[in-house]
Amino acid sequence: MASKIPLSPLARPLPDLGAVAGVRFGAAEAGIRYRGRTDLVMAEFDAGTTVAGVFTSNKCPGAPIDWCRAALAGGQARALVVNAGNANVFTGRAGVETTTATAAAAAALVGCPTNAVFLASTGVIGEILPAHKITDALPALHPTLREDAWEAAARGIMTTDTFPKASVRTAEIGGVAVRIQGIAKGSGMIAPDMATMLCFVATDAAIPADVLQGVLSGAVGRTFNRTTVDSDTSTSDTVLVFATGRAANPVPQDAADPALAGFAAALEAVLKDLALLVVRDGEGATKMMEIRVRGAVDDASAGRVAMAVANSPLVKTAIAGEDANWGRVVMAVGKCGEPADRDTLSVAIGGTWIARNGAVATGYDETPVVAHMKGQEILIEVDLGLGEGRNVAWTCDLTHGYIDINGSYRS
Amino acid sequence: MASKIPLSPLARPLPDLGAVAGVRFGAAEAGIRYRGRTDLVMAEFDAGTTVAGVFTSNKCPGAPIDWCRAALAGGQARALVVNAGNANVFTGRAGVETTTATAAAAAALVGCPTNAVFLASTGVIGEILPAHKITDALPALHPTLREDAWEAAARGIMTTDTFPKASVRTAEIGGVAVRIQGIAKGSGMIAPDMATMLCFVATDAAIPADVLQGVLSGAVGRTFNRTTVDSDTSTSDTVLVFATGRAANPVPQDAADPALAGFAAALEAVLKDLALLVVRDGEGATKMMEIRVRGAVDDASAGRVAMAVANSPLVKTAIAGEDANWGRVVMAVGKCGEPADRDTLSVAIGGTWIARNGAVATGYDETPVVAHMKGQEILIEVDLGLGEGRNVAWTCDLTHGYIDINGSYRS
Repeated sequence: MASKIPLSPLARPLPDLGAVAGVRFGAAEAGIRYRGRTDLVMAEFDAGTTVAGVFTSNKCPGAPIDWCRAALAGGQARALVVNAGNANVFTGRAGVETTTATAAAAAALVGCPTNAVFLASTGVIGEILPAHKITDALPALHPTLREDAWEAAARGIMTTDTFPKASVRTAEIGGVAVRIQGIAKGSGMIAPDMATMLCFVATDAAIPADVLQGVLSGAVGRTFNRTTVDSDTSTSDTVLVFATGRAANPVPQDAADPALAGFAAALEAVLKDLALLVVRDGEGATKMMEIRVRGAVDDASAGRVAMAVANSPLVKTAIAGEDANWGRVVMAVGKCGEPADRDTLSVAIGGTWIARNGAVATGYDETPVVAHMKGQEILIEVDLGLGEGRNVAWTCDLTHGYIDINGSYRS
Repeated sequence: MASKIPLSPLARPLPDLGAVAGVRFGAAEAGIRYRGRTDLVMAEFDAGTTVAGVFTSNKCPGAPIDWCRAALAGGQARALVVNAGNANVFTGRAGVETTTATAAAAAALVGCPTNAVFLASTGVIGEILPAHKITDALPALHPTLREDAWEAAARGIMTTDTFPKASVRTAEIGGVAVRIQGIAKGSGMIAPDMATMLCFVATDAAIPADVLQGVLSGAVGRTFNRTTVDSDTSTSDTVLVFATGRAANPVPQDAADPALAGFAAALEAVLKDLALLVVRDGEGATKMMEIRVRGAVDDASAGRVAMAVANSPLVKTAIAGEDANWGRVVMAVGKCGEPADRDTLSVAIGGTWIARNGAVATGYDETPVVAHMKGQEILIEVDLGLGEGRNVAWTCDLTHGYIDINGSYRS
């Protein structure tokens, strides 16, 4: 069914994906749900690779989330196994048996403890994921893993995604160049509260697991956790970052080490790239929306206001209809329970301040706003006029495409 | 534009609307926004009529909300003026001037203080509502007010509603029969946090304003506040109840008076009828959904879980597609931040328990569920397995119709 969904008009081409020393990827057709496409991805990491992860806050997480949370305590990664088409969520004991069997099979192939194997599954919820479909396919897949198979991996993890998503950055740590490269997939059930659906990043930097975790957690809060497609937080959200150490940089000992600043900024840039690519491929998306809020009582409050606007069906449908319906922005600001005062509230679209301090701005000329609405990238700004708090949210519009995709996903 | 929206398949015919002694209604074409239909409604109440009201919790309320909140302190009502097509929200000083002029005009016609005049406006946000359109029309409208014009009033307050909504009940207070009759309108921006868009109820019972307020506030919490169409809480939500006293019943002195029990139950039934009619006319609705949650840590928690399911775009689109996608219910339960445990969670659709204690129920037969999904009234039950808390939410599905209506509402 995924193949019937037209390419998002907001799609971006893949960047040049080189190798990350110490990381080998591969993809195979395991026939889990889709036919005629890859749906199983494996990665192998060099010995000594550290790992950090952030997972969904959903109270009904999938079995692979439970697995990864436990494995993360070891701080070491040698393998990653990801399947698309079945999320292995709400599958009870059978779900646990599938994760155990999958990890055991991968560990045997790589020659590592099972807690150095990381797992992720994405797709339908509540159907048993037969372990043998994965364990039968891994022995043939493992010998094919290559350093240059990142694109194959980006394609193999897609579900309703209409294009593969990747990002690359470089940085220096202590004068040594390092590479950061990541892939992600969406495209519905996206309202990350710790991470998005699935995102895997690798670097050749040498960074202890706890330090990597500190850098990752902060960056996810400013990137994936500021995006939403449909307000529905997935049961499978996973961001994993693997650091192989092959760059042989001086090893930083804590996340605040100034030598890590460039790496942290580059990692955050990769995560932001991937988060926005997920929004660009939001189910049915035709427009990208950025909501900037300022003047809130604090940054957290600004963030909740921005998310209320980003999740409002009435705002999202108005944007889809190219209607600069700022009244709906006012409604969304007012409904969310955060401190707000109608009479100090101002709203801008595309840089034009339409409403100021509780009423339409004097001499408001709709012309530039109408032109802005016809574009693919819509900027909504809200000034609450109360304090110094500011934040941002990114989302997409709500269109017939979303209904088409989600009214018939399983059937 | 409203006329292009097809009749909701969930529509219900109006009940027989008799008179409520002491209440006279009328409707006129004031040309505020729509053409060829009534858009201005006036009511006059007998001297001595008490009033209670509940309003939106949105922080950006319309000028008529501010007006009503202030007027309510007097506890007396002689007139009501309602217009459709323009919400008089976020209109600054001009909005206040319009409410003041409208109330003054109605007060002069009726011969009462301005704080006995109640106002409500519904429609587009952020456009100036010219007072003269209303004040010019009132002098001709006032002499036409009649006790049997309830249907005209129900039609005159509609915006994107596809059918007029009314409910009638009778009760006894101290052995004296009283009548309760109400009208309401939706149909989008419906996630009442104090009340829905607009709802007006009248009774011939004699009830002091503070007692009436006590009864009303409790009932709204169990009816309107348990419904949602699109999670977007309007800036104009208003429920007003007027009690003319013409039934000459023994006057109760507090809301807990046992003599009021029958009245309170009947008023709650009217409010529930009207709330569900609003959901039945939710923009684009093709199916009515009831979400019953039990086993929560307390009733409030159960209520938030029920609303999370009711507001999930993925659940609502699945219902529209007649897909018993209970995995999305699991996701919605888990995402909302309320206490939940995947391994004690059970989900039923149409009375069939599909998932029990964290996995698909043994021997689950999809046949009756598939049949239930083809109907117009969908029942989703969730048992959290944690405690005794229970609650309910009512909503409708999310369809192409919602996108059609809201992608082009203003244009």
